[in-house]
Amino acid sequence: MKRIFLNEVVTRDGFQIEPEFVPTDTKVALVDALSECGYAKIEVTAFVSPKAIPMLRDAEEVMGRIRRVPGVEYTVLVPNVRGAERALESKADELNLVMSVSEIHNLANLRMTRDKSFAALREVVRTAQQGHTPVNVSLSTAFGCPMAGEVAQQDVIAWAERYAELGVRGLTICDTTGMAHPGQVSRMAEALQQRFGHLQLTLHFHNTRGMGLANVLAAVQSGIERFDGSLGGLGGCPYAPGASGNICSEDTAHMLQEMGYDTGIDLPRLLRVARQLPSIVGHDVPGQVAKAGRSRDLHPVPAAVTELLASA
Amino acid sequence: MKRIFLNEVVTRDGFQIEPEFVPTDTKVALVDALSECGYAKIEVTAFVSPKAIPMLRDAEEVMGRIRRVPGVEYTVLVPNVRGAERALESKADELNLVMSVSEIHNLANLRMTRDKSFAALREVVRTAQQGHTPVNVSLSTAFGCPMAGEVAQQDVIAWAERYAELGVRGLTICDTTGMAHPGQVSRMAEALQQRFGHLQLTLHFHNTRGMGLANVLAAVQSGIERFDGSLGGLGGCPYAPGASGNICSEDTAHMLQEMGYDTGIDLPRLLRVARQLPSIVGHDVPGQVAKAGRSRDLHPVPAAVTELLASA
Repeated sequence: MKRIFLNEVVTRDGFQIEPEFVPTDTKVALVDALSECGYAKIEVTAFVSPKAIPMLRDAEEVMGRIRRVPGVEYTVLVPNVRGAERALESKADELNLVMSVSEIHNLANLRMTRDKSFAALREVVRTAQQGHTPVNVSLSTAFGCPMAGEVAQQDVIAWAERYAELGVRGLTICDTTGMAHPGQVSRMAEALQQRFGHLQLTLHFHNTRGMGLANVLAAVQSGIERFDGSLGGLGGCPYAPGASGNICSEDTAHMLQEMGYDTGIDLPRLLRVARQLPSIVGHDVPGQVAKAGRSRDLHPVPAAVTELLASA
Repeated sequence: MKRIFLNEVVTRDGFQIEPEFVPTDTKVALVDALSECGYAKIEVTAFVSPKAIPMLRDAEEVMGRIRRVPGVEYTVLVPNVRGAERALESKADELNLVMSVSEIHNLANLRMTRDKSFAALREVVRTAQQGHTPVNVSLSTAFGCPMAGEVAQQDVIAWAERYAELGVRGLTICDTTGMAHPGQVSRMAEALQQRFGHLQLTLHFHNTRGMGLANVLAAVQSGIERFDGSLGGLGGCPYAPGASGNICSEDTAHMLQEMGYDTGIDLPRLLRVARQLPSIVGHDVPGQVAKAGRSRDLHPVPAAVTELLASA
């Protein structure tokens, strides 16, 4: 059985756009529950300005209180050197840095050009390296930009190359607004593995247009072993109201397990956690398997059918 | 560009489990709108007992009033000889027959054994053939049964063989409750094409566990060219409350078109029709692209970003 490694991002990528603050106790309890489910990595929070993302203003406290399970890496998003210093103090296992491959999206999202982002993140990488902590770089809008449209694969490779040269451990290639299709994913996956086979390569998909798990399929067929997912499919993007968010962790694990992959995930346990999510965020979430049950969770045979069967 | 043929089932498979009767005028207008969208086939209604499925009690009137577009086939579901006679009177282009590969599901759904269903449907095939009208047979629960669990691929092939020997034109292999996974779909698609390459082979997927478009991908990779889909992803199964229904036609067409397939579908037109569906059925529907827009539908660049871009 081929091993696939899942990274849970619900408490960072999922929660950051939720309108209601999730209490710190609840966040800690949720991360602790997720820690027991078999993830390779959990993106716990972000060390950003509390003004920018009030939902994650309790980053220090959450990182200080979670119970760390051996074998699970606890990563955090950091936007700058100040964030990196806070993350290192919190003893994060990894620092995750973000910039967009689309210039327009980077300007819209981070208020600076990509070159300026790169210069700033180079300092963050240096800070992390001085703290002997591995770095992952997430490249957003790598499969398309909701404002600029097509993003050339060679631009993604070129930016990835610049970060690889800084000595980062991993790259996450993000379909930030669910524009990727499976053909594009196959081509990207092959190019990435050809150039960066020595790095941890993760793909990050959104299910905005229903293609999330089809893209996961295309990626695993092309040899990719690491995926981001969000419990319940929480997350998403402000450009598509009503649409789905990140690919759903439990739906992803379910599909891959049905196909015979070893995801490391204890799916019944994860589904119990997933079923608590709507009450945590106060609304329905897009995940399907938590509602329908696993394919192998059977329904009782109605008594009338049992009788018909006996007399048949 | 490889051609893929889509069959729209919303007014039959989608509507049949809706709680509120959709007025005949609305059904006719919807089929007429769908007829202009580029489908190869539309499953309009079912000639069943009005007591069994009150929602489709207007089958004759709907078939009599729709405006038929050349190039589009109008098919109807029929359960028995009486239904076949009504369907032939209505000048349906094709009769679609259904039975389950799972004995338990057939008993639960049709109140008879598979052997009894086969004997009855053999008469229906004969009736259709006397009326010079082609027959399609849909084999339900072909990828798993929600009560019995696994369904052997060889059982599906064996039942398909029996119908093929009767001279049916097409077979639809149905994942009735969304249990199929892509590995299973690939194996099934290959076996079907090997044995029944001379027939119209259609795959019918549900998105109950989020795997719908991943299964479409696996099927097209294996050479399958025909798929059922339901506008908005309407439909579904009573065993999974809250879960998604049939795969969504417009999401399927969108993915395949993005990948470079020729689906024949006028997607902007279809999306306009899809956006009317929630008001027709009185509730939200699972389809994503109608909410998010196509991947290539871009969003305006905010003025602040344009300024930053100019000064960058």
